[in-house]
Amino acid sequence: MPEFLKLIPPQEALDLLLDSFSQPSRVEDFETESSLGRVTSLPIMAPHALPSFMRSTVDGYAVIAADTHGASETLPVYLSIIGEVPMGDAPGFQISATKCMGMHTGGMLPKGADAVIMLEDTQQVKPNEVEILCSVADGENVLQIGEDVKSGQEVIPSGTRIRPAEVGGLMALGITRLQVRCKPKVGIISSGDEVIPPGSNLSPGRVRDINSYTLAALVEYAGGNSVRYGIIPDQLEAMIVSVSQALEECDTAVITAGSSASSRDLTAQVINELGDPGVLVHGVNVKPGKPTILGICEGKPVIGLPGNPVSALVIASLFVVPVVDMLLGVKISTPRPYVPARITINIASIAGREDWVAVRLIKNEVISSNEYVVEPVFGKSNLIFTLARADGLVRIPADVTGLNAGDLVEVFLL
Amino acid sequence: MPEFLKLIPPQEALDLLLDSFSQPSRVEDFETESSLGRVTSLPIMAPHALPSFMRSTVDGYAVIAADTHGASETLPVYLSIIGEVPMGDAPGFQISATKCMGMHTGGMLPKGADAVIMLEDTQQVKPNEVEILCSVADGENVLQIGEDVKSGQEVIPSGTRIRPAEVGGLMALGITRLQVRCKPKVGIISSGDEVIPPGSNLSPGRVRDINSYTLAALVEYAGGNSVRYGIIPDQLEAMIVSVSQALEECDTAVITAGSSASSRDLTAQVINELGDPGVLVHGVNVKPGKPTILGICEGKPVIGLPGNPVSALVIASLFVVPVVDMLLGVKISTPRPYVPARITINIASIAGREDWVAVRLIKNEVISSNEYVVEPVFGKSNLIFTLARADGLVRIPADVTGLNAGDLVEVFLL
Repeated sequence: MPEFLKLIPPQEALDLLLDSFSQPSRVEDFETESSLGRVTSLPIMAPHALPSFMRSTVDGYAVIAADTHGASETLPVYLSIIGEVPMGDAPGFQISATKCMGMHTGGMLPKGADAVIMLEDTQQVKPNEVEILCSVADGENVLQIGEDVKSGQEVIPSGTRIRPAEVGGLMALGITRLQVRCKPKVGIISSGDEVIPPGSNLSPGRVRDINSYTLAALVEYAGGNSVRYGIIPDQLEAMIVSVSQALEECDTAVITAGSSASSRDLTAQVINELGDPGVLVHGVNVKPGKPTILGICEGKPVIGLPGNPVSALVIASLFVVPVVDMLLGVKISTPRPYVPARITINIASIAGREDWVAVRLIKNEVISSNEYVVEPVFGKSNLIFTLARADGLVRIPADVTGLNAGDLVEVFLL
Repeated sequence: MPEFLKLIPPQEALDLLLDSFSQPSRVEDFETESSLGRVTSLPIMAPHALPSFMRSTVDGYAVIAADTHGASETLPVYLSIIGEVPMGDAPGFQISATKCMGMHTGGMLPKGADAVIMLEDTQQVKPNEVEILCSVADGENVLQIGEDVKSGQEVIPSGTRIRPAEVGGLMALGITRLQVRCKPKVGIISSGDEVIPPGSNLSPGRVRDINSYTLAALVEYAGGNSVRYGIIPDQLEAMIVSVSQALEECDTAVITAGSSASSRDLTAQVINELGDPGVLVHGVNVKPGKPTILGICEGKPVIGLPGNPVSALVIASLFVVPVVDMLLGVKISTPRPYVPARITINIASIAGREDWVAVRLIKNEVISSNEYVVEPVFGKSNLIFTLARADGLVRIPADVTGLNAGDLVEVFLL
């Protein structure tokens, strides 16, 4: 069993993989209102300025700012009201000196006006006359044309994952359809002579397929489409047929090996058979997940995950999710958010190896209702409910030899 | 304009709202493999133990632990190999004293065996004999029956949002369908005489509907179903017709008012007309979002959002998302994760009011590649691209008067 001759640190292994393939160019046209979570494939330019007209930000009167200069409560300026600006329409009049018009928030300034005085700073004395009780500056309480976005300006870069705010911005510009990257297809192959479909009855020695489904769920979260290729027996020929079909039909293939060493070896063999350069990394310096295999077959990434369901899910979040991001061409400018919390007990870890520990967050009512502590979820790492009982994972970096009770740690939610 | 006579702090306002309605009881049967993000409506019990048989966690030999006692490299114990346990099947033999069987990781222990010795701690000397080079304890390298989950044990509580780990756990137990809560329906009513559909051409004074779409996106993220009721003119009768239809067909209604004060007043009037107790909160002590209205009509929550698209989105994340969670009956045990970062400039804030500031995260290469700083996104708060350009929001609590440059803040990603 000449496995793991050289264990590679996870970040180095990931960089090696991500540098070895490029993103597919497939795009599709999509309704903006249904594009949440999709990734733009082109920079989006503003077809016109926003706002497209001068808008009031308050309720009050549109004025010529100069007319209000020197106005105060004791010495008000009197302006004559020549009308009210209707919401959703162009004002019917033009403002000239000593004139003003009633305005609602969001309304369009009449020609000639350059500021709006707030209702609170005025007092209407006659039906067609108002006292101005303070002065306003040119542009005060006004959104200028193009203040949000200028015509032709790039408003959303290529490679942006659409959030509610982007949906809103696109709608404001009348962009009701947009080009997004097609969801990358991730072929999932489960292997293992002991593995049976989840709908089957258990018989002695058999376990149900977990990994195909946790992986498919993770791929869906990441923005990919998963295609399951069933459970393949631990035989080279059968594996080659399935994995090559997956690679033909998908952008990447993920193999979750059976748990036995021979089954894991088979994965490496299959990757090497299916195209150059084959296996890039065999064994990663991380726990759980040491037997991870990363490879490239004819330009497409292939990932061999451990059979252990906890390892498979942890490793998939470290390797499969970034591969999906890369296939999507998503530009990630923000770090992953976490919950900081203090750990309740010491956790040992081997120096030089990165560890991921499943933890549960517990409200620390003693200190404050907003403080949390974490404790590891007890149970061997190959039990799936270890993860189902956990709130998140804590990373113990390779350069430390463990965590001490009371240490502040970063909890990445599952 | 007798608005905002009493501004209520946002948390107090939310608690008041959440205490005033109960969750609907509609449930549906769903395929587990498609249940990601759905919420369980019943506690889920294990129909059998997991593992369902004693499993090896290593490659090696199934033994009777007592047979290995005293074994060492210099004084090995010799055991005779009576066969190999096939993966996915029951072992064909029973282990008795001085006997052992070859085992793969994940394989089923033969009767009589109580431990597994790792391959690395053995040396095969003859085809049917192996040297045991160290001793193993009873149960060593073995998963016991029920070690993950006992038969009948509650494995997933009611009100759990299904993550990949839960999908895996359910599959392991053969639970391929489950009961989940129906997605709550959120009726969205947009009002404002100046508002036109996003597909329309702009004419002077008009702006396109943003809020219906950002809200629908947020509701989708939160696990609800949004139903848009179009853009309603600022007229009491028309609003009453639309909102009452929304309340009849949905679990909650959200009204995004036009930007003018009269339009906002209309929302409160509509809520009071449509059923008891009507408006609970009119005005929240938060910026942006002061004109927020919270009400209950015949047991269903109704939320009036400001027309300003930034305020609408911020306030929806503070009030609409928790309402969706409540309607889903989701039990939230974990706090919201964030990215900690230092703010680059001073930000003033009025004491007694909670502020939410849109910020952009910037990698702080000077300090370390993993450190981030944040700066506020400049631009008036009613410009939608202020949010599209932002990575997240920073909360300035009511009890401080602002943030100082260099302060560590919590950035909640948008």
